[in-house]
Amino acid sequence: MNDRFLKACRREPVDCTPVWLMRQAGRYMSEYRAIRERYGFLQMVKTPEVATEITLQPINAFAVDAAIIFADILPLLEGMGLQLTYEKGEGPIIHNPLRAPDDIRALRVTDSRESVAYTIEAVRLTKRELADKIPLIGFSGAPFTLASYAIEGGGSREYRLTKKLMYTHPDTWQTLMTKLVDQISDYLLAQVEAGADALQIFDSWAGALAPGDYAEYVLPYVQQVIANVKTRQLRTVPLIYFGTDMSGMYNILRQTGADVLGVDWRIFLDDAWAQIGPGSAVQGNLDPMVLFAPWPAIERRAADILDRAAGRPGHIFNLGHGILTETPVEHVQRLVEFVHSYSADQATR
Amino acid sequence: MNDRFLKACRREPVDCTPVWLMRQAGRYMSEYRAIRERYGFLQMVKTPEVATEITLQPINAFAVDAAIIFADILPLLEGMGLQLTYEKGEGPIIHNPLRAPDDIRALRVTDSRESVAYTIEAVRLTKRELADKIPLIGFSGAPFTLASYAIEGGGSREYRLTKKLMYTHPDTWQTLMTKLVDQISDYLLAQVEAGADALQIFDSWAGALAPGDYAEYVLPYVQQVIANVKTRQLRTVPLIYFGTDMSGMYNILRQTGADVLGVDWRIFLDDAWAQIGPGSAVQGNLDPMVLFAPWPAIERRAADILDRAAGRPGHIFNLGHGILTETPVEHVQRLVEFVHSYSADQATR
Repeated sequence: MNDRFLKACRREPVDCTPVWLMRQAGRYMSEYRAIRERYGFLQMVKTPEVATEITLQPINAFAVDAAIIFADILPLLEGMGLQLTYEKGEGPIIHNPLRAPDDIRALRVTDSRESVAYTIEAVRLTKRELADKIPLIGFSGAPFTLASYAIEGGGSREYRLTKKLMYTHPDTWQTLMTKLVDQISDYLLAQVEAGADALQIFDSWAGALAPGDYAEYVLPYVQQVIANVKTRQLRTVPLIYFGTDMSGMYNILRQTGADVLGVDWRIFLDDAWAQIGPGSAVQGNLDPMVLFAPWPAIERRAADILDRAAGRPGHIFNLGHGILTETPVEHVQRLVEFVHSYSADQATR
Repeated sequence: MNDRFLKACRREPVDCTPVWLMRQAGRYMSEYRAIRERYGFLQMVKTPEVATEITLQPINAFAVDAAIIFADILPLLEGMGLQLTYEKGEGPIIHNPLRAPDDIRALRVTDSRESVAYTIEAVRLTKRELADKIPLIGFSGAPFTLASYAIEGGGSREYRLTKKLMYTHPDTWQTLMTKLVDQISDYLLAQVEAGADALQIFDSWAGALAPGDYAEYVLPYVQQVIANVKTRQLRTVPLIYFGTDMSGMYNILRQTGADVLGVDWRIFLDDAWAQIGPGSAVQGNLDPMVLFAPWPAIERRAADILDRAAGRPGHIFNLGHGILTETPVEHVQRLVEFVHSYSADQATR
């Protein structure tokens, strides 16, 4: 197996810097759009053969060093009792959002092998198809990010209801977060059982919080998820914790227990790594919008990131957030090749 | 005059920490809503007597240490040639956004005393009404934030068109930013002439950029605005530079030349100040959503911010972004009193 990615997660030396791109199986690829014409978004997620095919599309097109299962963070909430749809152009909508303590008490924690069996099966199928060529990443939403979707009923800018609940009913918050910890831990462990070689926890919205509030209301639950997985997993798989807008709290994120911390593009990679300390690997941190620039502008920025990570094992090149629709495919291909060749030269310098 | 705010801007000792709140004249106040029922938003901005009355509403209600002129950052673009409306529930729309180099060449730089005469007159009227009780802050949008509205045609999440222009046509970008620098500098100077005691530059969206891109495409123009004002102003007024999502680049923002840097809530105030260094005052940094919490939760967070700023002159207490609609008025009043009393006790400890 090409284990460059797994080695970097463990901060071991590599021949060149591994690279994959968040949301690499996505709408910027014509192969993806061709399937999307025939299926609804959740239908693609819930049909293991389709999810497997989509997962493999970027692997066939680019020399990326990891696959990530094509799935979505929100269907996990359906098993807990929430009604989810994706409306065209509107993103996810939860039709019975959590608004009262009773709603939260009524949430169920399920066996993920049943409630999200389709994703577990997609992991199994994809592992077989990959034939150990490159590692497969499984993932889940983090407790805060799932809680905010469940409470707001969809995307949000201000997280009014989520923060109000957190500040006003700390006991109810704890109940909700504890249920999510149990559900997420189970889901991640089921993906390891099915063959996932690494896990990423997406806390995309936790950067909306002040660091003190993050430390008090979110960090303990992230720590529990990571500790649960580390204690109970059958094989040792690295855990990546990813959020955006967290440049002011990397010194807190180092306490999550994650092997790798994702870094968005709003901070220089070496500044983030200095805050994180030597105990974690880092993943990032190119602004996804840069891929719309002419190639020399992309190359200059990718090289700068690699230079800032040089001389220290444990960097996985990635974008600072998911790849955007309409991203030029030829730039993706060139970026992946550039990361490999430039970093291989760095190693011999 | 109560010059606590101006002293803190200059990092001089004060009897207690000065406090004002971004967007303190706003919809959370019933007095504001009563006027808003009779006028459109831009009509309020463009009627000096109304803008003056609104500016004074929070001054009459709370013991804040500064007034900020009721105005908007976008009408400055109208004089330059852009067509602006505010649509109900949609925010600002620019009907002829900048999409081609010719659009940018056609932009005019105007005399702000004519093109935004209403705000200059409102500053003059408000100064008279305030009778030197407390200082009056004038303000403008920053070059990047105004450019992004002008290019995107309104608010944005990804700043696709703005970043594309920046990466792809650096010369056109420079032309645009230079025109904005001239217009903004003139506008700020006109407000000083009319009596403004301090100035704030709002760069609310510059945190969407990677620090390297900020340093290359934005910082030089912020520096020019600040240098222009400092060189040409009639009286020496302090300059505040404010952005959000900039926790990863305070060590760059210290190079702006601003006397005070605004700090949102996504970083501990002392961590931000350590990056900024001793040469600037700081303003912030309570999460506006905290004002929806029960009072003890507000008090604990306000005290934490004051503790983190203690023992060092140059802190102005504020929210980390504008106050939100529906914020409980009694919490605003109590917060202002608490900041004064708690920090007065700190000073004697």
